[in-house]
Amino acid sequence: MPFVNIKITREGATKEQKEKLIRGATQLLVDVLGKNPVTTVVVIEEVDTDNWGVGGESVTTRRNRS
Amino acid sequence: MPFVNIKITREGATKEQKEKLIRGATQLLVDVLGKNPVTTVVVIEEVDTDNWGVGGESVTTRRNRS
Amino acid sequence: MPFVNIKITREGATKEQKEKLIRGATQLLVDVLGKNPVTTVVVIEEVDTDNWGVGGESVTTRRNRS
Amino acid sequence: MPFVNIKITREGATKEQKEKLIRGATQLLVDVLGKNPVTTVVVIEEVDTDNWGVGGESVTTRRNRS
Amino acid sequence: MPFVNIKITREGATKEQKEKLIRGATQLLVDVLGKNPVTTVVVIEEVDTDNWGVGGESVTTRRNRS
Amino acid sequence: MPFVNIKITREGATKEQKEKLIRGATQLLVDVLGKNPVTTVVVIEEVDTDNWGVGGESVTTRRNRS
Repeated sequence: MPFVNIKITREGATKEQKEKLIRGATQLLVDVLGKNPVTTVVVIEEVDTDNWGVGGESVTTRRNRS
Repeated sequence: MPFVNIKITREGATKEQKEKLIRGATQLLVDVLGKNPVTTVVVIEEVDTDNWGVGGESVTTRRNRS
Repeated sequence: MPFVNIKITREGATKEQKEKLIRGATQLLVDVLGKNPVTTVVVIEEVDTDNWGVGGESVTTRRNRS
Repeated sequence: MPFVNIKITREGATKEQKEKLIRGATQLLVDVLGKNPVTTVVVIEEVDTDNWGVGGESVTTRRNRS
Repeated sequence: MPFVNIKITREGATKEQKEKLIRGATQLLVDVLGKNPVTTVVVIEEVDTDNWGVGGESVTTRRNRS
Repeated sequence: MPFVNIKITREGATKEQKEKLIRGATQLLVDVLGKNPVTTVVVIEEVDTDNWGVGGESVTTRRNRS
């Protein structure tokens, strides 16, 4: 029954990459804690770079500057 | 002051259905814990089926297979 | 597969009250959206009143003042 | 390493306003707890007014009525 | 900069198991999306079985019945 | 009606520091977006250092090593 929430910046992750995140996170819970994969839920949230801040500025600004 | 976050797959929930979720969740907190509805907040998040995984695969893949 | 997260202040909610929250939130998703209750997850988080703020002050302070 | 999640209704917050939220929340953690700004993450989530409820009704409905 | 939140029932996960969850989730983001591990944050939340519901009842009740 | 969730490692933040976080986060939403402080909610979550990972290891391990 674990619940995994993965937040990443929205930068074109493909459907295949998301499948790998879902499969990998589920397997991790099985391997480490013996959780049942059938009831393990993974939710991926993609966040606009304007809305994600680190070091006191948005990722958009940070990228533009570098 | 309770805060309720409802995550569902994005599959066309209507405005009316969302109103019912908001009203029902608020009433539940009133009925069970005597909370003040005026300050009870409900946030509904709709997640693409590509981004929601269960059983190690996305809901998109699961639906396509069945 | 919905996921419901209920955050409340930690003020002695009983096991019976938590069961009612779990049952009620699950039934709400069944009634409004036809979701499968078997895979509906409800997580209740109880937060110390020192750590919950509203109106710019903690619930602890607000209660002491009134 | 703090993580700050700000949920607001989606009502046209500008890129500049989001920058101010990110900068301000990061600075708050520096000022109050001496946290390192470099590893402080701020994520802003904008939620449709249909999906945000308070007082048992959506913000959309509440606004239309007033 | 990804942020991963893993919610599990509180049932004695050891410090070593938590290290494996942290390492595994971080590596997953590196492998699938090429994210920088240095700024990848993983937060594990352990939830009492009274506070975790599935199928309309708490995990505590479900376990006692079986 | 904004909702702010601040996650920090559990390392002895005092009641006064938490009040400052609540006051500061609320004021930030007032100043930047003109939000109503009365309905702005701030929830602080303190997470054990064993349960907080960055750079692929727990904060506990990272601190012990340095």
